Amino acid sequence: MKPWCLTASEALTQIRSGKLSVEAYAMSLLDRIRQRNDAVQAWVYLDAGSIIKQARELDKVPQDKRGPLHGVPIAIKDVIYTKDMPTQHNSPLYEGSFPKVDAASVQILRHAGALIFGKTTTTEFAAIHVGTKTRNPHNPARTPGGSSSGSGAAVADLQVPLALGTQTGGSTIRPASFNGVFGFKPTWNAISREGQKVYAVILDTLGLYARYVDDLILLADVFDLEDDEDDEDDEDDTNSFHGIQGALFAICKTSVWDHVGKGTQSAMDKAATLLKAHGADVELLDLGAEFVNMDEWFRVVLHSEGRTAFLSEYRIGKDQIHNVLVSQVKNVDQFSRKTQLAASDGIAALRPRMDEIARRYAAIITPSVPDEAPVGLTSTGSHVFCSMWSVRTWQLREWRRTNANG
Amino acid sequence: MKPWCLTASEALTQIRSGKLSVEAYAMSLLDRIRQRNDAVQAWVYLDAGSIIKQARELDKVPQDKRGPLHGVPIAIKDVIYTKDMPTQHNSPLYEGSFPKVDAASVQILRHAGALIFGKTTTTEFAAIHVGTKTRNPHNPARTPGGSSSGSGAAVADLQVPLALGTQTGGSTIRPASFNGVFGFKPTWNAISREGQKVYAVILDTLGLYARYVDDLILLADVFDLEDDEDDEDDEDDTNSFHGIQGALFAICKTSVWDHVGKGTQSAMDKAATLLKAHGADVELLDLGAEFVNMDEWFRVVLHSEGRTAFLSEYRIGKDQIHNVLVSQVKNVDQFSRKTQLAASDGIAALRPRMDEIARRYAAIITPSVPDEAPVGLTSTGSHVFCSMWSVRTWQLREWRRTNANG
Repeated sequence: MKPWCLTASEALTQIRSGKLSVEAYAMSLLDRIRQRNDAVQAWVYLDAGSIIKQARELDKVPQDKRGPLHGVPIAIKDVIYTKDMPTQHNSPLYEGSFPKVDAASVQILRHAGALIFGKTTTTEFAAIHVGTKTRNPHNPARTPGGSSSGSGAAVADLQVPLALGTQTGGSTIRPASFNGVFGFKPTWNAISREGQKVYAVILDTLGLYARYVDDLILLADVFDLEDDEDDEDDEDDTNSFHGIQGALFAICKTSVWDHVGKGTQSAMDKAATLLKAHGADVELLDLGAEFVNMDEWFRVVLHSEGRTAFLSEYRIGKDQIHNVLVSQVKNVDQFSRKTQLAASDGIAALRPRMDEIARRYAAIITPSVPDEAPVGLTSTGSHVFCSMWSVRTWQLREWRRTNANG
Repeated sequence: MKPWCLTASEALTQIRSGKLSVEAYAMSLLDRIRQRNDAVQAWVYLDAGSIIKQARELDKVPQDKRGPLHGVPIAIKDVIYTKDMPTQHNSPLYEGSFPKVDAASVQILRHAGALIFGKTTTTEFAAIHVGTKTRNPHNPARTPGGSSSGSGAAVADLQVPLALGTQTGGSTIRPASFNGVFGFKPTWNAISREGQKVYAVILDTLGLYARYVDDLILLADVFDLEDDEDDEDDEDDTNSFHGIQGALFAICKTSVWDHVGKGTQSAMDKAATLLKAHGADVELLDLGAEFVNMDEWFRVVLHSEGRTAFLSEYRIGKDQIHNVLVSQVKNVDQFSRKTQLAASDGIAALRPRMDEIARRYAAIITPSVPDEAPVGLTSTGSHVFCSMWSVRTWQLREWRRTNANG
């Protein structure tokens, strides 16, 4: 098998045993990219010379000094700072911008021995839905989703085993779904967001991509993601997860179910059928009237935080940022502070309510996207099924259970 | 009067009228700093050549292209990115670190014509209470407070008219009080915190320093800080502020009043006496049992967010970061996720409650610090009176009223 086909976990094993050098692995991925780049166009910055140099340095590190991700290449969405590459946010205002500092996430990955491979495409500031140059590797006529377009496509196309994305509305989960890979949005602030472009501070989350669950676990461990141990004495926690047999799963269609297409509908049906076939119980979860304002509250919070976040770009070049962002800075919605506070208070009050609901289930299964990736590259598609779960920043206790919905 | 004695507003007027050049103003401040730097030591980076160069460029800008802060020098706390100066966080891990990018706040100031003057001292990552080299300009034996030590001291010592600080617990308000200047912590996320070191995302706030309220208003306007218009028909809003005569003020001693010293006690008494003498009504506000957990919740949230924030520094050099931060990363408190969530839920539920209380008053007056600046430079003093107001991120509607407690 060519090295570029390996999972991150397989590559790690081969590198550890000396069967594969980091340089040979990197060369193989660069070959794959050379073949596929015209069709997919996932990268905005990729310097083969620098990659090979990094790989050779990693090969020189003695076995006992190697980190848990030694030699594993990872792509970085171009809204996350990297000290040795530009960070340009797909904005003319930041063309050539080169902050010479690593984001906290990149610092942790680099220290763990990861090979920081290159920068992947993003929609402007990871904040709008206008497509990038990147195409869906499964069908170049379809969008790869966004805003983490390049990270989702590069991982799906076997150009790199792992990638970082970000999510404010659906920017990690949507590309994962459209490209057919795993996307993982950890609980808000479980991983430092330092050095990643700010849109809405209380929504922005680092996102992780891989083609295999084992590879996501590698990343989760490097970032020290951990939940409380299950408390056997906790009578409320009726459904601690010890395997699918006998476990209770929820299917949550949410209040935006009328956006669903045939692809998602049949995928949801299949999930329920498979779970039942493996001995699980499955029930429909209706969140009810209490949660009905979530979509509007999300919009209020997003636009209100965008008003703060993009003031600086508006000032230095309002003609060079997208209209959607100009509208937020100018508060075209005319949201009052009172409205803004009511939205954040409403969300905050539901957080513990969602915990009460979620603890009854082994997992809540909910759609990531309305349907398969739409045809066309001008729009990255709808985040309607993701946004409500992005604003629900309360999954901390439940993250291993509810967030693998990519 | 020497230019270094001017308020920012006075200097602006003189620069606008052509009576003062930006270069002459900058030279005067540099003279002041030359005289006073050995005694105060507020700066970690100050390049006179680059300042004069910037000043000359500003003098060349035609009148009709000048921004609202044209030529006004401002000091930047050294946890905030500046594209033309290093940002070192008072940490050996970041010695010489030079991110070539402006924080959003600095970008806005620079675009408004401000002269980005230099970088001021901070405690390590603005996160601990160990003093810096900076001394209190009123008495070199006393602390200037922290973590924005240099910004508070430089403004107080007339070395610069304005400065940026940051606050997570009491890092803006405490130095303002100890140095006898105005500190203003705007509502959380009213100003973008992009490009400022992250400690606790839901607490971190940019802070503003000046010696005059008019100068603070200059800054507030540049950052587009604005509240809703008072709603005349809103019967709940019983006390719209139209001057001191007849207005109702609250004195809030808080649950930590037993930390108070004679200096603060007599200042609070004097405030009440003065307000009454000018025709105001003053009443004691007891927040009661509902708010009694705030201090503990603050600690839980702070340490839990610190656990995420400093993981990267812990990984790359745990021997080079302060023990307090190591303890947070290692979760020495053994806070469970359940405890962390209960704290943030508790805080969130009180936010609208505090709005209900605050709207009864023209302003709530509460201590900034236990007493005058303590003797000694090893500790920056206690944030006990500030932290509870930092965690109460709900003052959005009330910011113009409640945040001038420096």
